[in-house]
Amino acid sequence: MNALLVLSGGMDSTSMLYAYRNGIRLAVNFHYGSNHNDRERESARYHCGKLGIELVEIDLDFMTRYFSSSLLSGADAIPEGSYDSENIRSTVVPFRNGIMLSIAAGLAESRGLDTVMLANHAGDHAIYPDCTPAFAEAMDKAIEAGTYPGIRLYTPFTHLTKAEIARKGADAGLDPCQTYSCYKGGETHCGRCATCVERHEAILTAGLPDTTPYQSTELLTK
Amino acid sequence: MNALLVLSGGMDSTSMLYAYRNGIRLAVNFHYGSNHNDRERESARYHCGKLGIELVEIDLDFMTRYFSSSLLSGADAIPEGSYDSENIRSTVVPFRNGIMLSIAAGLAESRGLDTVMLANHAGDHAIYPDCTPAFAEAMDKAIEAGTYPGIRLYTPFTHLTKAEIARKGADAGLDPCQTYSCYKGGETHCGRCATCVERHEAILTAGLPDTTPYQSTELLTK
Repeated sequence: MNALLVLSGGMDSTSMLYAYRNGIRLAVNFHYGSNHNDRERESARYHCGKLGIELVEIDLDFMTRYFSSSLLSGADAIPEGSYDSENIRSTVVPFRNGIMLSIAAGLAESRGLDTVMLANHAGDHAIYPDCTPAFAEAMDKAIEAGTYPGIRLYTPFTHLTKAEIARKGADAGLDPCQTYSCYKGGETHCGRCATCVERHEAILTAGLPDTTPYQSTELLTK
Repeated sequence: MNALLVLSGGMDSTSMLYAYRNGIRLAVNFHYGSNHNDRERESARYHCGKLGIELVEIDLDFMTRYFSSSLLSGADAIPEGSYDSENIRSTVVPFRNGIMLSIAAGLAESRGLDTVMLANHAGDHAIYPDCTPAFAEAMDKAIEAGTYPGIRLYTPFTHLTKAEIARKGADAGLDPCQTYSCYKGGETHCGRCATCVERHEAILTAGLPDTTPYQSTELLTK
């Protein structure tokens, strides 16, 4: 496998970077104008540098300009509390994974790679339609049909929970607390938004210590 | 149908704009750094203005920077002569239609539209993998699965020839000679590149006069 990984710099894709680093030749990080993209990108740079994997950074300015999502509307628009469908739905960025995977497929073809990887996972299925197995299967077929070399999409975390992913990353040498998740995008994790709550719970469930500094811990599982 | 059309400003997508204008609420034009994108965009603007359809213009700078294709390498790199596979293959921009359709899907969801349209057609199948019916079917499924409202892809020109498309456009009021095709991207059509040769032949086969000014006519069907 000669793969390109879509790497946000969050816990899931960074765990994939570590767990599959022997087959990953290139990572691509996208900035689509969300509050947390700057911090995520720092994390992506740090881990690619550490593992000696090339990182391409692509800015998708048109998404800030033309797309609707609370994730693109400043930290105050981000809902707080648990990561359930109703609460988090406003953060959906329409067809984000479709856009990132399509660009990744074109980049993979340009670089002579055979596989594109994405760290979608079971915890996101109910909320983000472009994280579901049905989406990933159809997108795999579209990329295979639409590229000369028949590039394939590989999503080995599709049926894992976020805790299982944290465990996989840790087993491969990643400290999950050295990744960035907070949707508010502050210098330290807020500890109140749904992604902070979900991240903390996953790290604990994986049996790992959560040494992430949080601004507030009152909404976090003890 | 409330559709968004991917509109290059070339003959095929402009014919679709005219033929389906009653259902098209928005058009999107992409600039990916090719030699002919500037001229195509002028054509897209002209026809949207004429029909009173809103046009969103999106620039994909990363493609110029990171993608390989003779289409992105200046006019001198464009092959001349007939539009057969071997000759035109260097002009493939990897997964271009996948990228444009994915962005169009996200934009359609942001605008509350239910359909994305693309003017891929039979003449391009052999050359561009992301113009084939197999690609369009898989991409339709991916967009339906990956968007909240289940947006669909509609490609009614998939099985038409370019001549049939020229005819459809003309029947709907378009003068095909008022669109732009030349891959070299000059102020007037070169008449030597494969797209000029193909365009001219399609217009004649459709039984229409070709009043396009060409810099050279020696390679064109009489």
